[in-house]
Amino acid sequence: MHNLPNDPIERLVALLAKLPGLGRRSARRAVLRMLTRPNETMLPLAEALAAAAAAVRPCQTCGNLDAQSPCGICRDPQRDHHLVCVVEGVADLWALERAHAHRGLYHVLGGVLSPMGGIGPEELSIQPLLARIAAGGIEEVIVALPATVDGAATAHYLTDRLRPSGIAVTRLAQGVPMGGALDVLDEGTLAAALRARRPV
Amino acid sequence: MHNLPNDPIERLVALLAKLPGLGRRSARRAVLRMLTRPNETMLPLAEALAAAAAAVRPCQTCGNLDAQSPCGICRDPQRDHHLVCVVEGVADLWALERAHAHRGLYHVLGGVLSPMGGIGPEELSIQPLLARIAAGGIEEVIVALPATVDGAATAHYLTDRLRPSGIAVTRLAQGVPMGGALDVLDEGTLAAALRARRPV
Repeated sequence: MHNLPNDPIERLVALLAKLPGLGRRSARRAVLRMLTRPNETMLPLAEALAAAAAAVRPCQTCGNLDAQSPCGICRDPQRDHHLVCVVEGVADLWALERAHAHRGLYHVLGGVLSPMGGIGPEELSIQPLLARIAAGGIEEVIVALPATVDGAATAHYLTDRLRPSGIAVTRLAQGVPMGGALDVLDEGTLAAALRARRPV
Repeated sequence: MHNLPNDPIERLVALLAKLPGLGRRSARRAVLRMLTRPNETMLPLAEALAAAAAAVRPCQTCGNLDAQSPCGICRDPQRDHHLVCVVEGVADLWALERAHAHRGLYHVLGGVLSPMGGIGPEELSIQPLLARIAAGGIEEVIVALPATVDGAATAHYLTDRLRPSGIAVTRLAQGVPMGGALDVLDEGTLAAALRARRPV
């Protein structure tokens, strides 16, 4: 943290303004709001930040961020430990958890392959995924990578690497999103939804 | 702070989501971003929050929020101590400071009169302003209250209360804002700008 102002208000505004979604203007507004009741708003937030910074770490098994490792999902006996969903990052894992759509475990790749960005297979958590599979018990891997060029290339590469293990490899369905009007969808999505049409 | 989750991540998201300008979605995004480098992002923010909560208080003279009282503006010998600008809140004071438009001091009313909202003259910092004037040295009060119905009524009331002191009372000019296209301005602003027209 360089060049932070010494004044406590300006310093707090500068740090808050670095957060995604907050600019200087909204950071100032947030600080003013908090300063009307500092003990009820600023101190709990300060403590929550310090507690999270101290406690949260990547799960050594799946890469999720949690206060314990293995994380709460990996330790949950209610979940299906035969089923592993591969995601690009923790944000996608959280999104799937909010949808309550996946009963199994996860594996966070930590990115997607990007020849332009210098991200090769060694930069991603692919070897640990193969080790998890080699340890036995996993019957299906769901590849839930973003539907982008890099995401599709990564899914393709991953499928090739997983094939020798003989386990089932699936991927998320592509199609029309819920509530999505057809006329605002891109052609690629429409074509994919048409190809993957299903009997009613 | 009631019903906050115990999980450190969820707790932090819940607290950040209370800030104006941040919803749960952007709070989660901010937390994820910070968790990639917790010691560089979360700990400085936690310390800045605790420092601001401990140090910042209202200036006993003008009502500005600052780490010292009297505040940095009231203590600044370079500023014009004969000139006091009356504002509704600290947000307006900060906005005027960012504009570098006012060389004098301030007085924060802490609101505007609102018969519907139960805000009478006693709820505002009017008596302390009269006391500052009675103490001598102030030659002009600039009333910089919002151009709303309540703001105008408060300005009117304040002007009446200030009149016996015999000092000059002025108010901000109303007119077309910089870069403002005429056809999107409301009729009230256009009429005021026309009435207050000046020779070129």
